[in-house]
Amino acid sequence: MKFISRSIIILCALSVLCIKTNAEDGHQLWLNKRPPISVNIICAKKSAVLNIAIKELTDGWQGPSGKRFTLNLSPEKSIKGDGFILDDAGIRANTEFGILYGTYEVLRRQKTGKMAGNLASNPSYMHRILNHWDNLDGSVERGYAGSSIFWRNEKNAITVTEKDKMLWHEYARANASIGINGTVVNNVNASPLILTSVYLKKVKDIAGVLRPYGVKVYLSVNFSSPVKTGGLKTSDPLDPEVKKWWAMKIKEIYSLIPDFGGFLVKANSEGQPGPQDFGRTHADGANMIADALKPYKGIVMWRAFVYSPSDKDRVMQAYSEFLPLDGQFRENVIIQIKNGPLDFQPREPFSPLFGALKKTAIMPELQITQEYLGRDIQLVYLAPMWEEFLKSDTYQEGSGSTIAQRTAGNIYPQQYTAIAGVANIGLDSNWCGHDFAQANWYAFGRMAWNNKMSSGDIAEEWLKQTFIQNEPEFIEPVKAMMMASREAAVNYMMPLGLHHIFVENHHYGPAPWFANKDLRQDWTSVYYHQADTNGIGFNRTSKGSNAISQYREPLASRFNHPDTCPEIYLLWFHHLPWDYKMKNGRILWNEMCYRYADGLNEVRKFQKTWDQVQPYVDQQRFYAVQHKLQRQCRDAQIWKDACLLYFQQFSKRPVPFDIERPVHDLEYLKNTPPSAIYN
Amino acid sequence: MKFISRSIIILCALSVLCIKTNAEDGHQLWLNKRPPISVNIICAKKSAVLNIAIKELTDGWQGPSGKRFTLNLSPEKSIKGDGFILDDAGIRANTEFGILYGTYEVLRRQKTGKMAGNLASNPSYMHRILNHWDNLDGSVERGYAGSSIFWRNEKNAITVTEKDKMLWHEYARANASIGINGTVVNNVNASPLILTSVYLKKVKDIAGVLRPYGVKVYLSVNFSSPVKTGGLKTSDPLDPEVKKWWAMKIKEIYSLIPDFGGFLVKANSEGQPGPQDFGRTHADGANMIADALKPYKGIVMWRAFVYSPSDKDRVMQAYSEFLPLDGQFRENVIIQIKNGPLDFQPREPFSPLFGALKKTAIMPELQITQEYLGRDIQLVYLAPMWEEFLKSDTYQEGSGSTIAQRTAGNIYPQQYTAIAGVANIGLDSNWCGHDFAQANWYAFGRMAWNNKMSSGDIAEEWLKQTFIQNEPEFIEPVKAMMMASREAAVNYMMPLGLHHIFVENHHYGPAPWFANKDLRQDWTSVYYHQADTNGIGFNRTSKGSNAISQYREPLASRFNHPDTCPEIYLLWFHHLPWDYKMKNGRILWNEMCYRYADGLNEVRKFQKTWDQVQPYVDQQRFYAVQHKLQRQCRDAQIWKDACLLYFQQFSKRPVPFDIERPVHDLEYLKNTPPSAIYN
Repeated sequence: MKFISRSIIILCALSVLCIKTNAEDGHQLWLNKRPPISVNIICAKKSAVLNIAIKELTDGWQGPSGKRFTLNLSPEKSIKGDGFILDDAGIRANTEFGILYGTYEVLRRQKTGKMAGNLASNPSYMHRILNHWDNLDGSVERGYAGSSIFWRNEKNAITVTEKDKMLWHEYARANASIGINGTVVNNVNASPLILTSVYLKKVKDIAGVLRPYGVKVYLSVNFSSPVKTGGLKTSDPLDPEVKKWWAMKIKEIYSLIPDFGGFLVKANSEGQPGPQDFGRTHADGANMIADALKPYKGIVMWRAFVYSPSDKDRVMQAYSEFLPLDGQFRENVIIQIKNGPLDFQPREPFSPLFGALKKTAIMPELQITQEYLGRDIQLVYLAPMWEEFLKSDTYQEGSGSTIAQRTAGNIYPQQYTAIAGVANIGLDSNWCGHDFAQANWYAFGRMAWNNKMSSGDIAEEWLKQTFIQNEPEFIEPVKAMMMASREAAVNYMMPLGLHHIFVENHHYGPAPWFANKDLRQDWTSVYYHQADTNGIGFNRTSKGSNAISQYREPLASRFNHPDTCPEIYLLWFHHLPWDYKMKNGRILWNEMCYRYADGLNEVRKFQKTWDQVQPYVDQQRFYAVQHKLQRQCRDAQIWKDACLLYFQQFSKRPVPFDIERPVHDLEYLKNTPPSAIYN
Repeated sequence: MKFISRSIIILCALSVLCIKTNAEDGHQLWLNKRPPISVNIICAKKSAVLNIAIKELTDGWQGPSGKRFTLNLSPEKSIKGDGFILDDAGIRANTEFGILYGTYEVLRRQKTGKMAGNLASNPSYMHRILNHWDNLDGSVERGYAGSSIFWRNEKNAITVTEKDKMLWHEYARANASIGINGTVVNNVNASPLILTSVYLKKVKDIAGVLRPYGVKVYLSVNFSSPVKTGGLKTSDPLDPEVKKWWAMKIKEIYSLIPDFGGFLVKANSEGQPGPQDFGRTHADGANMIADALKPYKGIVMWRAFVYSPSDKDRVMQAYSEFLPLDGQFRENVIIQIKNGPLDFQPREPFSPLFGALKKTAIMPELQITQEYLGRDIQLVYLAPMWEEFLKSDTYQEGSGSTIAQRTAGNIYPQQYTAIAGVANIGLDSNWCGHDFAQANWYAFGRMAWNNKMSSGDIAEEWLKQTFIQNEPEFIEPVKAMMMASREAAVNYMMPLGLHHIFVENHHYGPAPWFANKDLRQDWTSVYYHQADTNGIGFNRTSKGSNAISQYREPLASRFNHPDTCPEIYLLWFHHLPWDYKMKNGRILWNEMCYRYADGLNEVRKFQKTWDQVQPYVDQQRFYAVQHKLQRQCRDAQIWKDACLLYFQQFSKRPVPFDIERPVHDLEYLKNTPPSAIYN
């Protein structure tokens, strides 16, 4: 055992202060510092990881002054993986990372005013992974917070600067503080160049910075890499040369990065190459790579996001393609499935694959970046959506077969469990563009660690740490705003199960009118809302596409009938007449009108809430968020107006007269480029 | 006496039908036709004017079928000028135009459901004149309803087509129907070319069409005409050659147009030439022209809209310049004074000149075109503003010396009385751009005939005729909307006496920030609102510019003290601290916030009102007005946001939390050209 002297503590604190930028710009995330209180950390072992734990505790201790606090690495059966046990005397864990995660938990509890006390905490998933859709030129697909923190447009050399390393260090620390232990550093629409030695060299440097924080590096790979950069004539997964090439490449990677995590693959999806190009199955492709990774304990995350232009109902396709392959995948293959069957809409029912595959490892893919939920412009706290998803009961093995249980390996055994979140991180000084978008990164990590955690508790934790603020006058209204924000977005964008009526590609504003004969129909809006003079909604009942049949009973029957279908999914599953009677007695058209109006009015309330807490927030973040809420309100108005005016052409009914009238003109909204409307 | 046969009646009706365009486009104004009922018109005399009266009655009669109705031209002392007496048996008048005005009154009463019965009606003003600010190239200064109905860009010839004549015929009829009997057909910023023979030829043609409807033609003249088109070396009004030139020119005009009305002159104002260029007074200039017009009974309308860049308070200057000249003007000179001392703002106190000049003929100049009141975009019914103005008591000869009384010649005798309205008419099919802007043209005519008429009665009359609609479910809410519209505009633009904070030149949107060191200060916004951290408003009290001294007691004292100053004029006369206590107990800043919010919310109510009366309105006008109300609501929001965010920089106080937050950003509104904001 060894005492860490006060002078070392102070030295560490100073070194952290040196890289600390102005707190008001949000760069410190939820790791804002308070003046430390003295503490006496006892740790028998020394290592890079444990040194971080000791430094964090001495740097950030808010408990009793002079307290003796022990970090104890001793085997304990009740602790799983990198879990830990806290008590008043210290942290106990089976791994060094367990100590680190326990450290961050202690500090979090101290900062958020939670009582100390005993706590045993084991992670829900072994792999808690960010997916960066970062391109090698530095752009970020669906990124709204500046350029990539990993890549930039470089012509002749792939360089790594001290500034890069400092930023990656901050990034690793932030992730570790919420339990994230993996990162895919390049876009799923992967450039084959990522596997060339010049890029792998940089990946090695990244991994080096991230390693002591327990964040493993993964790569997205292009299935055609053997041809595109390997010089082979085919990428057929059953071709021996192809297998050899992948084995050689993986060996090269592990020689550079011994703890390399594995691959993420988007294959035969939206134009990406894949095994089907050679008449092979997803299983053939995934298994071939998995076999090559197995000696190194690497995993393959194989995406289920597939759909063909010809199918009659896009949301049914992943199920149709993957269910027949159940049982054919290697144990180190995990099928990565988006929460909903379509594409990260503001609200979708869960993907039926979560209740279908039994002999295949599966993992959820959540989208932290707000592609369809207001980009960096709108305050939309996503954790309630993820909570709704994780708590969804698939009934796969009877009642209680929630997605949280299934994906954590508690219903069917999985050698590897995992969860992925598409990152919202970029070079913006506050990392995420919108100060409140940080809460989504934070919540993803917290839920990945504990997939039963409530979104409300997470919001409160995040607020208290991020704004160094425990006053109920601040916490209560702002937490209420966060908690209401996703439902507000659903209401002003796509209430009652409407989906995919965004401006093409843009994915920010409304374009329910979008139709294009030259384009695949499942990329248009009219395909999804099916509005006509008879009614609105996509008929997925047994008399329609029969998508309901992909759900287990009692869900299939429940979804099949409008009377039993939850109204939040009503138009997802049903095409209903405009005068269909809702449970509250209103007709459908009127209910739609009220939902859109509620959504807009909710944003107006957010504005008032925020203005009222001004005394509790630093100026920079106060005005930044105020400004974005203004914009959100303008754009919610555009959504309400565009959708109601467009659908009114078919409903041929007035908007109820106690609802505010539109202020935008349909023709203007239809005929003006988004760049001119959204400012 | 002569019976007009049914067949002639039908022929007349058909000929009117031929030139009638689709009623739904608003081209018929308030003269929409209903199926005629038979009537038996008795008229002893025949003339172009009387034939019109007979045709209108037979064409539009809505009284008892087969009724015998007499037009009686016989002297009657109680009838003044072109006045008339109605009774059940017919119309009696001293002049043919009296019969014509009585005719339109009969038809109006029938259409609006007023009981027949006795009525004696004399005009308040002898001359009821539209001022067209039409340039000879066809553009219209402050015109928002298309190009000029009189002029167009013609290179080589000044042509008159049959289509022109048909339009002028409709224009004359519309004016006659509301008692307007004069029109100035060119801009007060007058081109000297108007007095050249090629243009006078066209003026003759216009006068020919207008004559049978009693609408006399007037011209705006450029004071430098003797030099610019006459070849003289000076335009000095005391120069004999100049006098001779005007006499000759006026003789030429009257040889072409024997009933020519006279001239309108804008001299030494905003860069226009005038007698002061030669060291002469306004009286010297006006009298010289008046003398030349006198043999023909022509009049000079000489505008009092003058101000110099150097004066300490622009609103005081017309008074300072004209009061010393009182008594020096010829009897056929009328000083044309804008209602307020500044420039047609949404609300001004009356110009003190109305309570000052005693030995000079004066006439009000109202602005029908909505230069500062929302152009053709906003529904703002101006008659309540004019009613407020006409009813203002100047106390010139004790209580009851209203402007209506003074300008009608009831306090001091005037040989000629007159009132002018700056027209809102253009080539748009509905004449005025906004369908409801027609009501302002209509109301001007009605108030010019009877300056004690209530704006509410006028609104009701106009609605019933224009929308062929007597249903209370339509009339009551829409009338209420019209009656509330001007106060709403004041509230969302410039409540509590604020003024002149528009975008430079543009005069539509807000620019309270507008300041420009290179420009005369009285053209900037900051000059007028004087906002600073101490407070807001222009100090015109005895401790400020002392503009209050130009009003008679008890007004001067009343305006001089914030406690007695009407709150609608508060910031016009006072610079007050942000926490100044209003009569309702609110502080000034909060009251401003509530006023702006009220203005916006009022427009939202208008939208609901309009949508609710859809069943009573034809589609074309319904959607046109609906569309414009949407825009009005958007722009009211911009006014509210721009003004509150701008002034908040000085008030440093929050907007009360029950008020909706801004949705626009001050920097955006300040830095974006109006063309990009107002769409």
